[in-house]
Amino acid sequence: MNEEKLASLISLITYEVCKCFTPEGVTYYDRLIPVGLSNKHVHLSRCDIEQLFGTGYQLTKMKDLLPGQFAAMETVTIVGSKGTFHNIRVLGPEREKSQVEISRSDGFILGINAPVRDSGDLKGTPGLIISGPRGAVNLEEGVICAKRHIHMSPDDAEYYQVRDKDLVSVIVEGEKAVTFHEVLVRVHPSFVLEMHIDLDEGNAAGLNNGNLVALRKKVNNLGG
Amino acid sequence: MNEEKLASLISLITYEVCKCFTPEGVTYYDRLIPVGLSNKHVHLSRCDIEQLFGTGYQLTKMKDLLPGQFAAMETVTIVGSKGTFHNIRVLGPEREKSQVEISRSDGFILGINAPVRDSGDLKGTPGLIISGPRGAVNLEEGVICAKRHIHMSPDDAEYYQVRDKDLVSVIVEGEKAVTFHEVLVRVHPSFVLEMHIDLDEGNAAGLNNGNLVALRKKVNNLGG
Repeated sequence: MNEEKLASLISLITYEVCKCFTPEGVTYYDRLIPVGLSNKHVHLSRCDIEQLFGTGYQLTKMKDLLPGQFAAMETVTIVGSKGTFHNIRVLGPEREKSQVEISRSDGFILGINAPVRDSGDLKGTPGLIISGPRGAVNLEEGVICAKRHIHMSPDDAEYYQVRDKDLVSVIVEGEKAVTFHEVLVRVHPSFVLEMHIDLDEGNAAGLNNGNLVALRKKVNNLGG
Repeated sequence: MNEEKLASLISLITYEVCKCFTPEGVTYYDRLIPVGLSNKHVHLSRCDIEQLFGTGYQLTKMKDLLPGQFAAMETVTIVGSKGTFHNIRVLGPEREKSQVEISRSDGFILGINAPVRDSGDLKGTPGLIISGPRGAVNLEEGVICAKRHIHMSPDDAEYYQVRDKDLVSVIVEGEKAVTFHEVLVRVHPSFVLEMHIDLDEGNAAGLNNGNLVALRKKVNNLGG
């Protein structure tokens, strides 16, 4: 092979590889991911449920969500230094520690600068006041912006070539097209494939519940 | 050159090219772009100003914005089928047609499904009621979600190798990292380099006013 042919071949390879990564042609897995939009909500501990709703109180299931989780009939009021939200849905079952999940825009209204965290990672996060029909809780910590994440089964994880706690990028098409980076992968046998984002993220990308998004292929799958 | 050497070379090229397009290593122009966050606001026609504020009324400048634009002292109330926002800022100067710019989340609260449009492209858009101190306007059309866009000078456009009305992608780093696609380029000698997005988009990406974002290099600049 002479130099001219080699140069031509290199040019062709470069062109073909690059073509895969144009905004329109970026490569992604064919198995698409339904979106679940999370509005602000509260998880409560046994102790806080009793403080808010009365001794021995049990949450009432309204609607099943993820396997093992449910939206409760109960709602609470959450109070920050600048603002208040009423009728905030409680999600069951009970947790060891109470946790309040808000979006960044909710944080501006409440006057709370909540960090982006994985669910359950509450150390050093701000608190707020939760008010219910029988009393109030001064939550010392537990307010977070839930990190965007994808729930998937081990089978999905194998398909996508990812592992629990990997960070991936997800492509949303349309007139408000975005690529979300820093999307946390959570793998568990009970998980059904779904990407969870908050309303800021959903609205920024023009998404509704159940819309399909695409996990971007890792470049080094091509690069070898 | 024998086949083994060629295979090794091709592998190296592929690796190097692909490396440029990992989420962390995607190529972008060094000239970064400050972000300007747009909250919902109203542009008013002469006729509507008189209807809302009285005959012969002139807007009062509160603060200069882009060259030739200003935030006025005046605010109005906007009323949709489901909700109302008070104290919505009027932006001057007057326009030929009134225009209301809201985010998608504002649209849910108002009960208005506003399309994503470039400023001034109002045909077939929904309307709403605007209320001021002297009267109200039943705006027939003019409510939009402003399409994300970048204002730039001809010099900037030359630097980025883009033209007026091109669509580009913009990279935001950080723990809420995203790439915004479908970002409209607007070029005018009076424009100062700035990317305009709404609060849904800003909060989804963790952005504040003045934060810097990067225009992504077109892949075919590398691919030849």
